[in-house]
Amino acid sequence: MRDFSQSHEWLSINTATLRRQWPLDRIINECARRGIRAISPWRDQVAAVGLQAVARQVRETGLTLSGYCRGGFFPAADAAGLAAAIDDNRRAIDEACTLGAPCLVLVVGSLPGALEGQPLHRDIARARTEVTDGIAATLEHARRAGMPLAIEPLHPMQAAERACINTLEHALDVCDALDPTRSGTLGVAVDLYHVWWDPKLMRQIDRAGRTRLLAFHVCDWLTPTRDLLNDRGMMGDGVIEIRKARAHMEAAGYAGHCEVEIFSERWWGRPGEEVLDTCIARHRSVV
Amino acid sequence: MRDFSQSHEWLSINTATLRRQWPLDRIINECARRGIRAISPWRDQVAAVGLQAVARQVRETGLTLSGYCRGGFFPAADAAGLAAAIDDNRRAIDEACTLGAPCLVLVVGSLPGALEGQPLHRDIARARTEVTDGIAATLEHARRAGMPLAIEPLHPMQAAERACINTLEHALDVCDALDPTRSGTLGVAVDLYHVWWDPKLMRQIDRAGRTRLLAFHVCDWLTPTRDLLNDRGMMGDGVIEIRKARAHMEAAGYAGHCEVEIFSERWWGRPGEEVLDTCIARHRSVV
Repeated sequence: MRDFSQSHEWLSINTATLRRQWPLDRIINECARRGIRAISPWRDQVAAVGLQAVARQVRETGLTLSGYCRGGFFPAADAAGLAAAIDDNRRAIDEACTLGAPCLVLVVGSLPGALEGQPLHRDIARARTEVTDGIAATLEHARRAGMPLAIEPLHPMQAAERACINTLEHALDVCDALDPTRSGTLGVAVDLYHVWWDPKLMRQIDRAGRTRLLAFHVCDWLTPTRDLLNDRGMMGDGVIEIRKARAHMEAAGYAGHCEVEIFSERWWGRPGEEVLDTCIARHRSVV
Repeated sequence: MRDFSQSHEWLSINTATLRRQWPLDRIINECARRGIRAISPWRDQVAAVGLQAVARQVRETGLTLSGYCRGGFFPAADAAGLAAAIDDNRRAIDEACTLGAPCLVLVVGSLPGALEGQPLHRDIARARTEVTDGIAATLEHARRAGMPLAIEPLHPMQAAERACINTLEHALDVCDALDPTRSGTLGVAVDLYHVWWDPKLMRQIDRAGRTRLLAFHVCDWLTPTRDLLNDRGMMGDGVIEIRKARAHMEAAGYAGHCEVEIFSERWWGRPGEEVLDTCIARHRSVV
């Protein structure tokens, strides 16, 4: 297991962590200044600065990406919506290529309209079929582009609105169905916030193995958690056994970045400098 | 599948649904007055009125129980705490017998102290072992008393504080380990609020079968859900496919009550009469 206590060379910052403090170009500079060597940006943050400008800035600062957030949201109410989602995912793949990302993270979507508080139907099995079909329809484009797709299981509390894939086991079942040869084009993003509670987590990490383990996200689960979306904790402030999980990831073959992704009203309300410095310190002491 | 549209003879009211409006003796009378034939009371509500008084009132009103809430909370920081939990579960079994309940529902517990916001450790695997050991140590008392224990998997968002068993599969794994002969003394309570999101739900209901399916709880999952504990919805107001799940339960052999259990600031804030009348109406139209 890699020793992170003396260095943060494997730390990556998911830029949603600082979305309220700074635009992406400032985030990149602040990361580079602290010796943080990787980021994982969101599409809307990239678009706000400009895709080519971000790609250039990433190159010039010598940063790498640990992922690009995000594709997905495949289910839709009708055929036009399903087709639009596939088109949008192809664009996301192309953007990820322009940025030099190692994978496109998929938040797969679920009941159409639920995110807006008006679900158009309740048939989650239908949503799951549409997700599988949508990934299948996107996979050839990803393969040609050389851009792996990383299915991210979200916590079951987000099953209606954001993702109907809620366990690593389910994500890997989809991988095995669509990419039985383990080509490298389809895998998973393991975000401990979403999967820490799962009694089968370690077994499924073993099952995934190096070729399917495309990303590793960390933060912490607070007790109590006061909001279903924006109350994530800084590593060390909650109950997730982060180091145990990282040891298991590495034993299974994962050798990439540890990406800090904290959606939190608490941390969005603090100075960006403090957030980054805390991420570095906790990465060394806790992760 | 039973037709509920013309009658509410299989409706049960979990009395937490009305805990802010009325004491238990009033709840029982209001249920009986409306032709509701079953309840599932909580220990603290029973204690506030008196165990013998409640048992007598239940008999006199002709109600039955669909369960007794709750035993569990097995994990503890030390040996004394573990022993105290087992003692308390034995008392809960005896109370359930006095009340004539068909089962004692187990909310198994998780990280000691987490419910109070001060988890004493993060080792959820240890908590899971203590749960299995605690149920094992309680089982003989339950068997002699003829009181089945129903393990209730809670939603993963409650994994730190309330229950480290969060899927029906995990609950059934514990059942199979401790009661391989399917004696009838150990089974599960299927609360759709907690398990609706699970892609393996239907398969695990099949696996459970008649001898393990001891209780069935309904309410609904709202989009958005604003609180991790007290924002459950009335049946029909959310995204759970209740009737589809009930059909599956019945096909697997379940023939008991449908128990409405709604923890909700919204519904606790309304008149108890309105809540009960709405439960009856939705039981007929949605469940």
